[in-house]
Amino acid sequence: MAENIPNGSPESVNIIDGPTNPMVTPILTDLYQFTMAYAYWKAGKHNERAVFDLYFRRNPFGGEYTIFAGLEECIKFIASFKLTEDEIAFIRSSLPPSCEDGFYEYLRGLDCSDIEIYSVSEGSVVFPKVPLMRIEGPIAVVQLLETPFVNLTNYASLVTTNAARHRFVAGRSKMLLEFGLRRAQGPDGGISASKYCYMGGFDATSNVAAGKLFGIPLRGTHSHAFVSSFLSPDEIIDKSLQHHDGSSVCEDFVSLVQTWLNKLKWSHLLGGIFSETNQSELAAFASYALAFPGSFLALVDTYDVMRSGLPNFCAVALALNDLGYKAVGIRLDSGDLAYQSCEARKFFCAIEKEFGLLGFGKTSITASNDLNEETLDALNKQGHEVDAFGIGTHLVTCYAQAALGVVFKLVEINNQPRIKLSEDVSKVSIPCKKRCYRLYGKEGYPLVDIMTGENEPSPKVGERILCRHPFSESKRAYVVPQHVEELLKCFWPGNSDKIREDLPPLKEIRERCIEQLDQMRPDHMRRLNPTPYKVSVSAKLYDFIHFLWLNEAPVGELQ
Amino acid sequence: MAENIPNGSPESVNIIDGPTNPMVTPILTDLYQFTMAYAYWKAGKHNERAVFDLYFRRNPFGGEYTIFAGLEECIKFIASFKLTEDEIAFIRSSLPPSCEDGFYEYLRGLDCSDIEIYSVSEGSVVFPKVPLMRIEGPIAVVQLLETPFVNLTNYASLVTTNAARHRFVAGRSKMLLEFGLRRAQGPDGGISASKYCYMGGFDATSNVAAGKLFGIPLRGTHSHAFVSSFLSPDEIIDKSLQHHDGSSVCEDFVSLVQTWLNKLKWSHLLGGIFSETNQSELAAFASYALAFPGSFLALVDTYDVMRSGLPNFCAVALALNDLGYKAVGIRLDSGDLAYQSCEARKFFCAIEKEFGLLGFGKTSITASNDLNEETLDALNKQGHEVDAFGIGTHLVTCYAQAALGVVFKLVEINNQPRIKLSEDVSKVSIPCKKRCYRLYGKEGYPLVDIMTGENEPSPKVGERILCRHPFSESKRAYVVPQHVEELLKCFWPGNSDKIREDLPPLKEIRERCIEQLDQMRPDHMRRLNPTPYKVSVSAKLYDFIHFLWLNEAPVGELQ
Repeated sequence: MAENIPNGSPESVNIIDGPTNPMVTPILTDLYQFTMAYAYWKAGKHNERAVFDLYFRRNPFGGEYTIFAGLEECIKFIASFKLTEDEIAFIRSSLPPSCEDGFYEYLRGLDCSDIEIYSVSEGSVVFPKVPLMRIEGPIAVVQLLETPFVNLTNYASLVTTNAARHRFVAGRSKMLLEFGLRRAQGPDGGISASKYCYMGGFDATSNVAAGKLFGIPLRGTHSHAFVSSFLSPDEIIDKSLQHHDGSSVCEDFVSLVQTWLNKLKWSHLLGGIFSETNQSELAAFASYALAFPGSFLALVDTYDVMRSGLPNFCAVALALNDLGYKAVGIRLDSGDLAYQSCEARKFFCAIEKEFGLLGFGKTSITASNDLNEETLDALNKQGHEVDAFGIGTHLVTCYAQAALGVVFKLVEINNQPRIKLSEDVSKVSIPCKKRCYRLYGKEGYPLVDIMTGENEPSPKVGERILCRHPFSESKRAYVVPQHVEELLKCFWPGNSDKIREDLPPLKEIRERCIEQLDQMRPDHMRRLNPTPYKVSVSAKLYDFIHFLWLNEAPVGELQ
Repeated sequence: MAENIPNGSPESVNIIDGPTNPMVTPILTDLYQFTMAYAYWKAGKHNERAVFDLYFRRNPFGGEYTIFAGLEECIKFIASFKLTEDEIAFIRSSLPPSCEDGFYEYLRGLDCSDIEIYSVSEGSVVFPKVPLMRIEGPIAVVQLLETPFVNLTNYASLVTTNAARHRFVAGRSKMLLEFGLRRAQGPDGGISASKYCYMGGFDATSNVAAGKLFGIPLRGTHSHAFVSSFLSPDEIIDKSLQHHDGSSVCEDFVSLVQTWLNKLKWSHLLGGIFSETNQSELAAFASYALAFPGSFLALVDTYDVMRSGLPNFCAVALALNDLGYKAVGIRLDSGDLAYQSCEARKFFCAIEKEFGLLGFGKTSITASNDLNEETLDALNKQGHEVDAFGIGTHLVTCYAQAALGVVFKLVEINNQPRIKLSEDVSKVSIPCKKRCYRLYGKEGYPLVDIMTGENEPSPKVGERILCRHPFSESKRAYVVPQHVEELLKCFWPGNSDKIREDLPPLKEIRERCIEQLDQMRPDHMRRLNPTPYKVSVSAKLYDFIHFLWLNEAPVGELQ
């Protein structure tokens, strides 16, 4: 529960729960945040007002966009930020005995009531260098937020982006199911993955805990083990199934299935592609249909898709149809998914024709088995009949690129702008407390993001503004925006009198994400050689960055 | 706390805590485990005795070995396995309304008291196809364990292996620090990473929560932000520092530092590599030394390592030395780490010589910045003077291969062996409830792992036994073992009268891991083209696998 309700009376503020994972506490951080806190405290510097930017340097997966995610968990974290006595005792035992007692008193009183957080809305399309969050407050406290904030946004943004990229390749009409829990990096990796894949455009998850925590639709039927756990249809004791409309009871559903299997076997139209189907598989399918007559979906590749799984499925589906139930479909989990899906579709259509079963040709085909962006793309090129994709390992572990480089850099202290230099220009930080805007062009697409100093006038619709590359002198452009969007909004006002933005529900964030992706110019989105989106600074900020840079960097001496 | 203490009176059994992450509950599983449970229950099959193997198919990171990890968390999970009313209500809301009430009654009574778990010891070197765990019990219950067990062992084994590989390249004498929390895949990804990297041979972590939970040594000093948060030494108010032996107080430590900086500047031996060092950096170092005089370690690359960070560090270190303190060292976090470490070492040695400071040349050098196996190897080849490595992103996200393919397959039900076929031979499962042995040769190295049927006589020291490749007819060898080790031990006896193996503390598991790695023949361990370790089955099991395979696979018909 929220410990530090900032600014205003309780009735004006919604209660904010703690983080989803109870392991997210103030000690889920690097030790150096506490050694620094002590050094700040010892130097009497701990309450100096600092501004940090949270941002990343490069888009993942060879793309030119990223989705920002993890904000809600960060806000929940600071809303409940409070060190327990037990945690303080542990910190004391981890620091040298020479550290003074007053510091632990200080830690005891620590909360986030004096922190201000400005952030891009969760689920937004974002770009390198532009702050995703700006965190202001007493330097010792803000530093303590670094590791948890980076942890909570890094993977969240990465996997949301990965999900969005999978959605992009799969197309809007396909059903996308996240099946990654077992391969995720730890239990929370699985739970976060389910949340953020949904945010990035997936339709459902297999993860029951995530369904319960976040209200994500759940999907799942049975595994290969279920199929091979049956030996023969004789095992099935209760073979009765009531008609869907309740009008009658079929006393021997298994016989009805066998009858249909025979009809299929002798049908000329189906071309006799099988002679003997696997009986343990048939038993498993019939048994599953008896348990779930209204939602029968079978995994058909345990023995052989075309010679066993598919005809067995159809026999059960046709028997169900006799009793007023509509089978949902099949899942393919190995082999050539493009070929098998096309063959399965043909088979379904042939049955529709042969037995006059309207709609049977449209029986749903789900594919799984180590899918990723590449394989989805290859399936598209080859042609396939898959309606739904179950994606696990590659999606949730972000196999193609397992980490995003979100960083957290000091940009101002006591109103003094600060810069972090590096021999690698891409690692030089952009100093100053900044404002960030997205400028839109005539066609409605975002054109460029621009950062300005805190006190510069904001860009105005219809007014020409010079946008400069932050580090490359010659890269600049005049822009006349048709629409200006301020990117950083106040999500935690601290002691300021700003209004706190609400944390929208997951479904709404998901919609924002889908909408924002739709709004992007297509050349930024394509998989092959996408055009980089432009990120810029105002002329004034440009000059200041370079002044500060030369001021801080030592001049070399050649000898 | 343990809900299901199996077998025996409470006094004979140690209490087992719940899983580290409280989010690990029985609903942290795939929905299909519950739909299958219902189908098993509906078919009256739910109590049929099933045997599942948990294993993986391929070693990660292009290597030929894997470390098994995650067992303790699995045992903790089943020890506290119990569905809450709230969870049961959620499951009910996720299944079709037609599912019968009796099923939820059944779920209410469910626990793991009738489950038996046999497992390889945690921290063991393991190989593909050989079961890491064998899980026996009522099929519906064992299925519910699939997803959490795979989740808890998959990443655990992967990241432990990754840590062991990093240790192998770095060599025994180097200090290895895990710094990955901020880039880990979710909070738990970070906590698991810290635990398992320690298990795999790392020395310490930056993650405070992991230090508290698992007793792992903690390390950490300060960041770039700490350095740039200072503007000048004038900021430091309290400049006094007591001599280490308490004999006197230096009233102006900062002046002492400035004095040393001047001496360094004018020293001929040091070659005048700098003129003006950054004053905010000097202030930060002095301030940090005032807070931690006994453990001064400075990050020296905020502005310029050779022209600023290194001389500033040395000035502070020499001032500390005057007061009886020994500085720990520096950290390098960018640029050419090999070159910088060698230059820094030269500088330290020159100071030792110039000022007669015995041991200063050995001042510790820590390197960080996107390190991985490859860069460690490259540093070795180039020559470097680094004493400790801080490794984050690549280590904890297992960037080189972000997932291990641990699977969970049915091998027997009601004493009937089961096989899972696949067009891909490597995906065919090895049927039967099995025993597994490691056979050691004359030189003390493990030679081969062999799987046999449950009731076959075990291999005996000095007796020749035929070891066959499970699928490749012509690959076989006679082995006369000098030592035979049974791999699967009972960690959860259920209702059997077996003795339960204790869960050793993390430190002991870590030692086992290091010992086991040492015991391997070097050619299995090398990074380039390692020799695959042999995994085999007994002649009897070989014949049975192939009999069952032909029995289950449909015969094709060419038309």
